[in-house]
Amino acid sequence: MATILSVSGSPSATSRTARLLRHLDTRLAAQGHEVIPLDVRTLPPQALLHADFGHPAIAEATAQFAAADGVVIGTPVYKAAYSGLLKSLLDLLPQYALTGKTVLPLATGGTTAHVLAIDYALRPVLASMGPTHITPGWFTLDKDISVGDDGALTLAPGAAEGLAQVTDQFSAALGGRPRALLAATG
Amino acid sequence: MATILSVSGSPSATSRTARLLRHLDTRLAAQGHEVIPLDVRTLPPQALLHADFGHPAIAEATAQFAAADGVVIGTPVYKAAYSGLLKSLLDLLPQYALTGKTVLPLATGGTTAHVLAIDYALRPVLASMGPTHITPGWFTLDKDISVGDDGALTLAPGAAEGLAQVTDQFSAALGGRPRALLAATG
Amino acid sequence: MATILSVSGSPSATSRTARLLRHLDTRLAAQGHEVIPLDVRTLPPQALLHADFGHPAIAEATAQFAAADGVVIGTPVYKAAYSGLLKSLLDLLPQYALTGKTVLPLATGGTTAHVLAIDYALRPVLASMGPTHITPGWFTLDKDISVGDDGALTLAPGAAEGLAQVTDQFSAALGGRPRALLAATG
Amino acid sequence: MATILSVSGSPSATSRTARLLRHLDTRLAAQGHEVIPLDVRTLPPQALLHADFGHPAIAEATAQFAAADGVVIGTPVYKAAYSGLLKSLLDLLPQYALTGKTVLPLATGGTTAHVLAIDYALRPVLASMGPTHITPGWFTLDKDISVGDDGALTLAPGAAEGLAQVTDQFSAALGGRPRALLAATG
Repeated sequence: MATILSVSGSPSATSRTARLLRHLDTRLAAQGHEVIPLDVRTLPPQALLHADFGHPAIAEATAQFAAADGVVIGTPVYKAAYSGLLKSLLDLLPQYALTGKTVLPLATGGTTAHVLAIDYALRPVLASMGPTHITPGWFTLDKDISVGDDGALTLAPGAAEGLAQVTDQFSAALGGRPRALLAATG
Repeated sequence: MATILSVSGSPSATSRTARLLRHLDTRLAAQGHEVIPLDVRTLPPQALLHADFGHPAIAEATAQFAAADGVVIGTPVYKAAYSGLLKSLLDLLPQYALTGKTVLPLATGGTTAHVLAIDYALRPVLASMGPTHITPGWFTLDKDISVGDDGALTLAPGAAEGLAQVTDQFSAALGGRPRALLAATG
Repeated sequence: MATILSVSGSPSATSRTARLLRHLDTRLAAQGHEVIPLDVRTLPPQALLHADFGHPAIAEATAQFAAADGVVIGTPVYKAAYSGLLKSLLDLLPQYALTGKTVLPLATGGTTAHVLAIDYALRPVLASMGPTHITPGWFTLDKDISVGDDGALTLAPGAAEGLAQVTDQFSAALGGRPRALLAATG
Repeated sequence: MATILSVSGSPSATSRTARLLRHLDTRLAAQGHEVIPLDVRTLPPQALLHADFGHPAIAEATAQFAAADGVVIGTPVYKAAYSGLLKSLLDLLPQYALTGKTVLPLATGGTTAHVLAIDYALRPVLASMGPTHITPGWFTLDKDISVGDDGALTLAPGAAEGLAQVTDQFSAALGGRPRALLAATG
């Protein structure tokens, strides 16, 4: 029903943040949305850090933001804030790149002491980019994310419930199919 | 008297932020400090963004932080916060890389509407890294920084005065020569 | 269409913030909403500051929050943040007093240097109280608000336009009558 | 050696925050400082909330700030930030009431999820008031503070150590007697 860009801002190749986003992508797709994953780590580092707006990969990412109705932004918490990798991409986007869009902010981290980084660090940056709606976010502890040998992701019950709730609120704000219907149709 | 690492976090090759820091470096050197400039833009982008702690250039920057008594951190304000480039470097440093150090936070930007980014965005990140002292910072408007054909930098009077004051407070916290003496000896 | 609580957090008896909110109340009422004004300054100071949850006036304010679909929060900026008066009331409300509600954050101040206080100071506090939606806010300069001898309020053109826009976004999020229709019907 | 104003911003009559500050006051006094306790809760609520700068009790508190070399600011964390009571007092002080002073920020709260409130909420407000130095702060969990039948306060070991360390850093910044000497002389 809506086009969603799902952005992982983790610099790690085996990132819990990225796996978590891909896991939520499945839920959003099942609710009728078209989900486009974007792993900032795959964009060219030199273009990201030297403000090379014209690089084709940067131009494509910019176009993906422009075309999206909703944007999921996921980041690990480092030094009490979002990753530099994520911010490098946001820095390259137009000042009001989120105008008219609905945004879901997510973070992962090693300690609950970093929970407020979503609202005090990430949300003000996103707010400066003009979104219509930043829906309630969620902070997931690293230890609540398990990855099996087959790459399948398992969440601790509390984390699973919290993430499902904020994902569904985000989906609903985008006009997604209600959960009840989803359950009925499988 | 002290060893100061002076870090510019601007992604631009013709950065006002970088020129401003080099300008202040001269003042700090005249007060008896050894000043080491570090332009994050010159570090390898791939190592910065993919968390390559072992890269020789990253290891050297990390050692420069470890050896410094004082650190000047300068950044342009993008999207209501510090640059992603600067944060990419901070992300690679040990969690308490600023332990025992004195830090001077500086920012540049196009509008006074971004002034609070120093205290609400940059300072909490620096505080999370364990410094003994973050001295009062200063926000300089882009239009108050002029660069002549010879590359010489001129500051508008108000900006010059404010920057001199915070630089001298930083220097004094590091045990720099007092201003009066400096004036007397030229 | 919706019930809106419009909260002024200014400690001043002749507050620009309060007058501004009452001005916007008229616009919201014209869009079909029921608007209930709440001037925190009229609540009993001792009950506010000594956590007297049981005081009838505090209980009534708490009930007004509970009954509202939307909440306008207006505050002057003092010391780079919202007023202590406003925070005193928020402190007395249940932790999730904004659950399910849509919130419009507004601030007034003497300098554009305080603009970011909405997103870095006020919004995180509101976000901690569980709202469904905090719509884009607006910062109004004191000098852009004029009060005539008859008490009528006049806004500078830029401020009037910005406030109208965020008010209408808030109204739309609450299911208010669209502007076009409003214009057509007067 | 220095005059320290020790300010508790808790609205509760049986506040852990206030007891904690009085406990640290003893340590600071033993290091040779004159410590003046100020419990914001004892100031007249009406004067605090209605900006009555001329009230004798407010004028006295303002003078105590002016006369202090160092200021300890302690607050419970409510709604992800400092208390409205504390902010009400700060709002009444001159804009640069902390000029030339050294400040120690402390917070108490029920969950580690509120740790960042010191650096993201309290510190920017304090920074706006012009202090020379805000030393590293400390967040103490409510459950780590026990009060015996005789009113004596006991801290959990980790909390005791952390608080001792930040208190001694604050004291040292004010020229307090070094810990080693203190230990030697009892």
